[in-house]
Amino acid sequence: MTDTMNRSTTAPAHSELDPADGARAYELDRQYVFHSWSAQATLDPFVIAGGSGSEVWGYDGVRYLDISSQLVNTNIGHSHPKVVAAIQKQAAELATVAPAHANLARGEAAKRIVEKAGPGFAKVFFTNGGADAIENAIRMARLTTRKHKVISTFRSYHGNTGASIAATGDWRRMPNEYAWGHLRVFGPFLYRSEFHSTTEAEECERALQHLERTIQAEGPDTIAALVLESVPGTAGIFAPPAGYLAGVRAIADKYNIVWIADEVMAGFGRTGEWFAWQGQGVNPEGVVPDLIAFAKGVNSGYVPVGGVVISPKIAAAFDERVFPGGLTYSGHPLAMASIVASIDAMEDEGIVANAKMIGEQHLGPGLRALAEKHAMIGDVRGLGVFWALDLVTDRATREPVAASVIGALKKELMARHVLPFAAENRIHVVPPCVVTPAEVERALVALDEAFTAVTQG
Amino acid sequence: MTDTMNRSTTAPAHSELDPADGARAYELDRQYVFHSWSAQATLDPFVIAGGSGSEVWGYDGVRYLDISSQLVNTNIGHSHPKVVAAIQKQAAELATVAPAHANLARGEAAKRIVEKAGPGFAKVFFTNGGADAIENAIRMARLTTRKHKVISTFRSYHGNTGASIAATGDWRRMPNEYAWGHLRVFGPFLYRSEFHSTTEAEECERALQHLERTIQAEGPDTIAALVLESVPGTAGIFAPPAGYLAGVRAIADKYNIVWIADEVMAGFGRTGEWFAWQGQGVNPEGVVPDLIAFAKGVNSGYVPVGGVVISPKIAAAFDERVFPGGLTYSGHPLAMASIVASIDAMEDEGIVANAKMIGEQHLGPGLRALAEKHAMIGDVRGLGVFWALDLVTDRATREPVAASVIGALKKELMARHVLPFAAENRIHVVPPCVVTPAEVERALVALDEAFTAVTQG
Ligand SMILES: Cc1ncc(COP(=O)(O)O)c(C=O)c1O
Ligand SMILES: Cc1ncc(COP(=O)(O)O)c(C=O)c1O
Repeated sequence: MTDTMNRSTTAPAHSELDPADGARAYELDRQYVFHSWSAQATLDPFVIAGGSGSEVWGYDGVRYLDISSQLVNTNIGHSHPKVVAAIQKQAAELATVAPAHANLARGEAAKRIVEKAGPGFAKVFFTNGGADAIENAIRMARLTTRKHKVISTFRSYHGNTGASIAATGDWRRMPNEYAWGHLRVFGPFLYRSEFHSTTEAEECERALQHLERTIQAEGPDTIAALVLESVPGTAGIFAPPAGYLAGVRAIADKYNIVWIADEVMAGFGRTGEWFAWQGQGVNPEGVVPDLIAFAKGVNSGYVPVGGVVISPKIAAAFDERVFPGGLTYSGHPLAMASIVASIDAMEDEGIVANAKMIGEQHLGPGLRALAEKHAMIGDVRGLGVFWALDLVTDRATREPVAASVIGALKKELMARHVLPFAAENRIHVVPPCVVTPAEVERALVALDEAFTAVTQG
Repeated sequence: MTDTMNRSTTAPAHSELDPADGARAYELDRQYVFHSWSAQATLDPFVIAGGSGSEVWGYDGVRYLDISSQLVNTNIGHSHPKVVAAIQKQAAELATVAPAHANLARGEAAKRIVEKAGPGFAKVFFTNGGADAIENAIRMARLTTRKHKVISTFRSYHGNTGASIAATGDWRRMPNEYAWGHLRVFGPFLYRSEFHSTTEAEECERALQHLERTIQAEGPDTIAALVLESVPGTAGIFAPPAGYLAGVRAIADKYNIVWIADEVMAGFGRTGEWFAWQGQGVNPEGVVPDLIAFAKGVNSGYVPVGGVVISPKIAAAFDERVFPGGLTYSGHPLAMASIVASIDAMEDEGIVANAKMIGEQHLGPGLRALAEKHAMIGDVRGLGVFWALDLVTDRATREPVAASVIGALKKELMARHVLPFAAENRIHVVPPCVVTPAEVERALVALDEAFTAVTQG
């Protein structure tokens, strides 16, 4: 078995592409568009005109293999015809309604998401993206526990709004810390252990001990929530060691703390499962979180959307009590229709199973083979279509490579028509879940050549 | 002139409506959907199947005149054919790209928004809705002033995320206050003055004095931003007295404070102007804010989107310095295409001018005539298609009516197939900007009958 998918993706013709549009897009962007996470004057953006499956192209029609899935969100690939058709149909019928009213697409979407999450879940609160999913999950945890502090990890990203950026561990939090009631701890990550561990089992035990000791020392009666990426993404793609999530569940139960699983990046196929916490490798004990924050893969970002999947207990806490959170586009019909079509297509076409197969049979073995050849690759980590190459100057010290090395690699990959995702000293290999074995092979060849070029350069 | 619009709205046929879908939508909603700002068990949502122009309908095909514009966002009306077509086209070409890349629709949208905002503005940062627009505007103010406190008003709503809910004045803030560096003051509102004023001029002067004294007493060197709805919306629709915004501009300049105009509800046609602060009545001196937060009317909510329009000075501050904010769907192509089509259609069809004409010639006079007949209407306030009826038990004391009265009015209006917007003791009459004189007449008749029924009941 090399392809588990019953695919329906077809690439549109390029006949309408006009290079003048590309020039105009570039000029308008430089003049009028203010970009995320950037110094504006230093940008030289790549203009994208269209995409299909695992490929995108500019106005010159040159096709790039997208191993970034943009921001790790186009799980179903670009321009999936069933999702496009569902958006087109819903747009004609009813694009928007107020959240207080009901609409069929919203109920259908919520039902599917609850079913994928399994028997531990009852309802869905829809938001516009990942950040406000985290905001509302934290709100639910605080109001139901009647406690205030939120624990997250230093190696994490949870969004750019008040509470979600304060929960974020990476540098992006630092200029933005205006929310109180947040603290960060170190999580398990053996390759760069904060606990002087030498085995996964040791890392797991020590990280759990560190977490529990922090809770005890902060005061368990002050801790409302524990926010954890089930598999941390932007921070470096490292699945927790076996036993860690079970330990988290036990600690959460012991101290009446809500476990919020941030599945914004890891969810909906990325790890080869509907949710990363459901994976046998990630969570052999099969423990269940209290709240799941999602976005990205739920509809591959075709329409902005996110949300929180809610346990029966937390949902019921707001049966008679007003939930004091909301937003204009909660349960937006256009977004909902795209979720319904996307989940159904992923199901019908075996797209989640494809991601798993690709990880096990192609991407995992291929990237490990690459590491055999290139000393710069210090560590290969991942599962499904969610992989990181941790690049080092020295395998013994694990010293991260300089930013210039990453810049050079990106350039070499773009020259080979592969669109990469870089983070700190790493290349993340995160193609759509629909990626084929042949496309993986194309990516591996380009990576091999790029590493060779940069090592020799 | 009774209709300034060159309208292109046509209503689709109802042939496909199936009442069984309505029942299913209701059941799925009650089982799986968690709603904004509500006690979940007490809800009885209205199921909406479709809409066109100023009307929406359920699966029974019964048409309701939507004088709520849903959450005051469908400024261009429901199912505008040009906006629907633009969404359908963009969905087929490219629904999503990462914010770091460029795309043509994003540049075209940003250009139009900057042009509507006028020469005081340079660039647009796109978000997913109103809350994160406010979050990012506050971020820009803090980072450019290198100060931290944010002043807003008690009668305000700015969104449900960390900083935007802390800036919010109304009850929704209270269970959610986990951000530091926020304070609220009273703004000008003569009908329920906090300053013992008897004239608009007095209210203006006293509100400005209160604001300046608060800044002085808090410490001007601690205040980064002043966040103001140009015309407060959910809090009761009260345009500032002449001179107030000029006074705000002077205070902001004097103390190096960034004036953030929250135009999420008031912008893009609602007041009969592209932005409320541009109106001669609201801002006779024509002063200009530093940042404009927008959402809702920019594309009538057809695709979730919001953003910040940025002055040249603040934009340039991030030319060489990294802007530490961002989100996956910033500048989302589908949202961008809907903005371009919506602004162009509003322009070509005279929709903003229609809103102004409707306010001056139909809705204003009609609602004032209603107040002559019904003693319960204590105050009629508004402009464009943005009106509030402030309901009282006694015109002398201005005591707000009980919630039960509002509930009864809503019921009477729904029975007359008019979908209302209620807030506290008020009915907000906020139809789409495309509303016709005949539809206004229909709304006025229904309101008249509903007031009579509730007064007699
Ligand atoms: C794990 C995680 N949580 C939350 C977010 C925030 O999502 P959004 O950008 O949609 O606000 C992201 C975005 O990358 C993420 O990776
Ligand atoms: C003035 C104002 N600001 C901000 C918001 C928040 O917008 P959103 O619901 O899109 O987050 C609203 C929503 O009603 C609003 O009216």
